[in-house]
Amino acid sequence: MAVYTDITDAELEALLARYGLGEPLAFKGIAEGVSNSNFLLETEAGRFILTIYEHRTPEEDLPFFLGLMRWLGAHGYPSPSPLPDREGEVLQRIGGKPAAMVSFLKGVSVRRPTIGHCREAGQGLAELHLAAEGFPGKRANGLGQSDWIPIFSVLHDEAERLKPGLAGEIDEDLFKLALAWPRDLPTGVIHADLFPDNVFFLDGKFAAAIDFYFACNDILAYDLGICLNAWCFEPDGSFNVTKAQSLVAGYESRRSLSSAERDALPLLAYGAAMRFFLTRLADWGATPAGALVKPHNPLEYESKLAFHRAAKGQLQLFGTASA
Amino acid sequence: MAVYTDITDAELEALLARYGLGEPLAFKGIAEGVSNSNFLLETEAGRFILTIYEHRTPEEDLPFFLGLMRWLGAHGYPSPSPLPDREGEVLQRIGGKPAAMVSFLKGVSVRRPTIGHCREAGQGLAELHLAAEGFPGKRANGLGQSDWIPIFSVLHDEAERLKPGLAGEIDEDLFKLALAWPRDLPTGVIHADLFPDNVFFLDGKFAAAIDFYFACNDILAYDLGICLNAWCFEPDGSFNVTKAQSLVAGYESRRSLSSAERDALPLLAYGAAMRFFLTRLADWGATPAGALVKPHNPLEYESKLAFHRAAKGQLQLFGTASA
Repeated sequence: MAVYTDITDAELEALLARYGLGEPLAFKGIAEGVSNSNFLLETEAGRFILTIYEHRTPEEDLPFFLGLMRWLGAHGYPSPSPLPDREGEVLQRIGGKPAAMVSFLKGVSVRRPTIGHCREAGQGLAELHLAAEGFPGKRANGLGQSDWIPIFSVLHDEAERLKPGLAGEIDEDLFKLALAWPRDLPTGVIHADLFPDNVFFLDGKFAAAIDFYFACNDILAYDLGICLNAWCFEPDGSFNVTKAQSLVAGYESRRSLSSAERDALPLLAYGAAMRFFLTRLADWGATPAGALVKPHNPLEYESKLAFHRAAKGQLQLFGTASA
Repeated sequence: MAVYTDITDAELEALLARYGLGEPLAFKGIAEGVSNSNFLLETEAGRFILTIYEHRTPEEDLPFFLGLMRWLGAHGYPSPSPLPDREGEVLQRIGGKPAAMVSFLKGVSVRRPTIGHCREAGQGLAELHLAAEGFPGKRANGLGQSDWIPIFSVLHDEAERLKPGLAGEIDEDLFKLALAWPRDLPTGVIHADLFPDNVFFLDGKFAAAIDFYFACNDILAYDLGICLNAWCFEPDGSFNVTKAQSLVAGYESRRSLSSAERDALPLLAYGAAMRFFLTRLADWGATPAGALVKPHNPLEYESKLAFHRAAKGQLQLFGTASA
């Protein structure tokens, strides 16, 4: 849930005037995305999503995010397209915060993806990688492998509070990941946060991807590693190999993985588990008692991390994936 | 903002099947209403609001609320109409909680009502009173004048914590209100919570009223007293007599007030300020530190109460209202 910023009548009126969209027919705060405030706006001209960027989305990166979304839209990828105002500007300002209007997309996210959803999500991810090819913007991944050791350096106590003995295990993980992290796999623009709540389906088919505010340049197959963690673990913590194979097969139906990419997937998923564990651990410790937003419990990703640690990056999960 | 209950894929699917509404095209939690969880649902059949009733809405009163909304819809009043499922049932159950699907209504609520909005709101309120005439359901106002003394009896300490000396003032208010409260004004179904966020406008005109979950039988003009407090005070705490006159004139454009009703308005607004002060004071004290919903600060209504206390129910605010 996320509506952090309220909008005054005058601000809404001024915004509509800048776009020439006429009178509002509906305007509702919606619970979509966790970092920013989102509103569903309907006017005679159609339906739009208004996003107000809160402090978690770095303002200097907005041109990259909005430029990417515009590029993807222009290349036929189903993602929210930023709407230029009458002067051609996509970046607005509301209540002192940056904001943008994007197209409304139909579709419904699923809480518990099926094998079929995993296949569709994999396909949607590969299509994103292909559609983004040639996009000239660049953004380094601020939460990439080289950032994990510095991020964890201030979280030792937090990790020990979560589970005594955990800090030492994480240190070992970080060391292993740093040594083994692949350096020569194909890179490109990745979504970096394609969790089930960021994918819309229509009638069981992939319909759209949203929330591009972690997108960056990194190893393409790492994006698939992120999805393996986000889509293929069951609520009881078990890893569903069939879903994993389906996700990868869906991906490969659009973009083939090299054998180096396929071999690296268990390790990339191990690293992806580390990345989400670390930010959730940081949020968990940093959230004051009275906050309006409940942070994700870091234990979910601690358990995924433990799964990959035990697998030692050696599991042949995807032997049949490209069959 | 209010999305307290999440809905599983299976629950959503089962719900759509019960209504025969086809595949979902959009499903989003929305920040509307403070007591319940609300979702905007779109299918091929149209758009709907799904409400899941949380503990603040007494389950035994749902037949009254849903029956009233159905009655109002059938009598042409623009309010959410409950949708019967294929077996004719309007009351559903999701995740162990009662739930209902109602029609989606266009319109936008205003944060800072103008004089024109006040007039429109008054007219919409009178139309509600007229449309509800003949509705056979009955529900006592559990937050009516006779309830205030028992409610406050356990809040003395809370009032003193808010402002030293306040408890004694409230006791005097309660005594004066009990003595002077009118017993012979016309009664009927009142909305009892027609704040600006519960009224939709289209192009500056009253378009709909929502959130009927405090509706009950009480003095009709008391509903206008509630609106005087909710619509006619400025953010700096001052009372805008022009807005008050406009609200009453709008009301009287549809339903004339008797001179007894008009004379009683200052006192009814005094009582209405007490009712909202008391529940906000109770919520303020009862909300645990880690709660997801921020309670309203009771000081806003303490200041409105002080205004009415100083006016002693003697202000001739509405002498020109019906001109």
